[in-house]
Amino acid sequence: MNDSEYMRRALSLARRGLGTTSPNPPVGAILVRDGVELGSGWHKGPGQPHAEVEAMSDAVKRHGEGAARGATMYVTLEPCSTHGRTGPCTTALIRAGVSRVVVGATDPNPSHEGKAESLFLEAGIDFEEGIEESACHSLIRAFTKVQRSGLPWVIVKSAFGMDGKVTRPASEGQWLSGEGSRKEVHELRGEVDAILTSGKTVRSDNPRLTIRGPSRAAGQNQPLRVVLTSRENGVPEKCHLLADNFSDRTLIYRSRRIECVLRELVSDHGVLSVMIEAGGSLVGQFLDEGWADEAVFYLAPLITGGSIPAVGGEGVLDLRRRIELGSCSFRRIDNDVRVRAAILRDSNPAGI
Amino acid sequence: MNDSEYMRRALSLARRGLGTTSPNPPVGAILVRDGVELGSGWHKGPGQPHAEVEAMSDAVKRHGEGAARGATMYVTLEPCSTHGRTGPCTTALIRAGVSRVVVGATDPNPSHEGKAESLFLEAGIDFEEGIEESACHSLIRAFTKVQRSGLPWVIVKSAFGMDGKVTRPASEGQWLSGEGSRKEVHELRGEVDAILTSGKTVRSDNPRLTIRGPSRAAGQNQPLRVVLTSRENGVPEKCHLLADNFSDRTLIYRSRRIECVLRELVSDHGVLSVMIEAGGSLVGQFLDEGWADEAVFYLAPLITGGSIPAVGGEGVLDLRRRIELGSCSFRRIDNDVRVRAAILRDSNPAGI
Repeated sequence: MNDSEYMRRALSLARRGLGTTSPNPPVGAILVRDGVELGSGWHKGPGQPHAEVEAMSDAVKRHGEGAARGATMYVTLEPCSTHGRTGPCTTALIRAGVSRVVVGATDPNPSHEGKAESLFLEAGIDFEEGIEESACHSLIRAFTKVQRSGLPWVIVKSAFGMDGKVTRPASEGQWLSGEGSRKEVHELRGEVDAILTSGKTVRSDNPRLTIRGPSRAAGQNQPLRVVLTSRENGVPEKCHLLADNFSDRTLIYRSRRIECVLRELVSDHGVLSVMIEAGGSLVGQFLDEGWADEAVFYLAPLITGGSIPAVGGEGVLDLRRRIELGSCSFRRIDNDVRVRAAILRDSNPAGI
Repeated sequence: MNDSEYMRRALSLARRGLGTTSPNPPVGAILVRDGVELGSGWHKGPGQPHAEVEAMSDAVKRHGEGAARGATMYVTLEPCSTHGRTGPCTTALIRAGVSRVVVGATDPNPSHEGKAESLFLEAGIDFEEGIEESACHSLIRAFTKVQRSGLPWVIVKSAFGMDGKVTRPASEGQWLSGEGSRKEVHELRGEVDAILTSGKTVRSDNPRLTIRGPSRAAGQNQPLRVVLTSRENGVPEKCHLLADNFSDRTLIYRSRRIECVLRELVSDHGVLSVMIEAGGSLVGQFLDEGWADEAVFYLAPLITGGSIPAVGGEGVLDLRRRIELGSCSFRRIDNDVRVRAAILRDSNPAGI
């Protein structure tokens, strides 16, 4: 295997942490010597060891003390160089005697950004950066956005007919999209820290907004469930969000600006990523005001016509101000098609 | 090659006639003996020889008189058994001495339907039917609909953002879809007999609705351009449709019911297939009233939001009455995705 192949293996480990690491980013690492994988690991959550330390402990467990000596560490994110809840990984790697460190993405955290290289070079350790860089950056896009703006990564999710319409609220118990798409929504919920909806959706649909089925990682919390409402009693006491076993995971914000809610989710709740699951008005408002970073649309093979759009809001009055989608991917899921795309903006030209 | 492979070759010949054969269906044929293709042909248009006769003439030209003797005729549609503008093909095949006839689809024309079999069997000729049947039926779906209902096959075509919206009329010179999609629209125009639009679209967009570029077959007429309007002077004299070189191909219907227009296009103009290229209101009306058989949507990688839907109309007020799409195909065209699907109805369960 070459550097890229080892890094892709580290990426696949990193992905196991999706949904459990916030406010930290998901990171994966493997330790290799002479083509043999000595140890592997990924970051599991705040207060837990970093991926590099996990990989080294795994190597020691499997091959005894000193296992890391002369080995190469592949890690998806630049190792930290400051004391956080754990000691700096750069020091741990130097002490363990690794001879080479290969990194995917530079750490967007200004306290670390680019600092590892000189520490390793001073210690006589070979250092390489930017292997599978775009995939490594993509995996931590929510963390990067928070570091740079204090705002979470926002995904708007919706399901509608080919004509962009929903006939009536999903509340009425008729799903537009198929079973496969609905299953995938649970996987998406498992990858974000919070699901955001409107009081109107809660009143009409009474959704659970939980991760159900095998999509929830062992020990993973349910995502925060965030309701925006302008009414005093906008969220009925008996709704699932307030009455089920996870009611401590429900936050209600009344008459608050979207920006304040998003910033507070980051600063007070360690949220990196939010998924909007709501009707066309709230989805439209997020798009109109420029809070959304990514769109996930499930297009069902039907036309409802009529006047209830899945994406509402003011919209753009001039086509030159339309929202361009980048890195569009299309995937057939049974009879639906899932479109996943980055929302491009001047401030977000690469979808990050 | 086996029977299916020969039939697919005949199908590919038949497709060359798409857009030029109306009111006849496209048909292709090849004549084969001992694994050698002796001759091939397709129907080119009304008054021209049928595909089987073309294939036999080609065989005679290449191999001399009597070339068809003992050969197998593969033909996408059941040979005709009555005198039309040309003699019956069943007689021609029997006289030429073919020993086997392999057919794709039964002729939906009640004067022919299922009659060929007994004629061939009486003449001691082997007969097989239903080879590549669904592709052969699909190719003549417009002809079949006209035979059964007197109404043409109707395709609604539209281009819009991922949210089903167009910000403002295309008139303003800003295309939503990319160059590849627009090129494909010319190919689609080349396969139908008429393009139908509204006075409103003519006034705001002044479209040409012609086949431009290499999509137009040699000698092919431009499609009929049909405008529905309710206003007395709904179509400006100086618009392309009335002022260009093909103005004799423009028909204007004022304050006429859609059904009457469709029936008249069939009876008076030999039209089998119509494509709707118009704004959301007319597209919606065709869907609401149940005239559409097929949808071709070009989804551009952008979100415009706002209130101008590509598919308007009343829509369905109950999700149980939604329009289901069948045989959905998705194709990526540059950055767009093209969705092509049959509109399923009680009267049209298989999309035919």
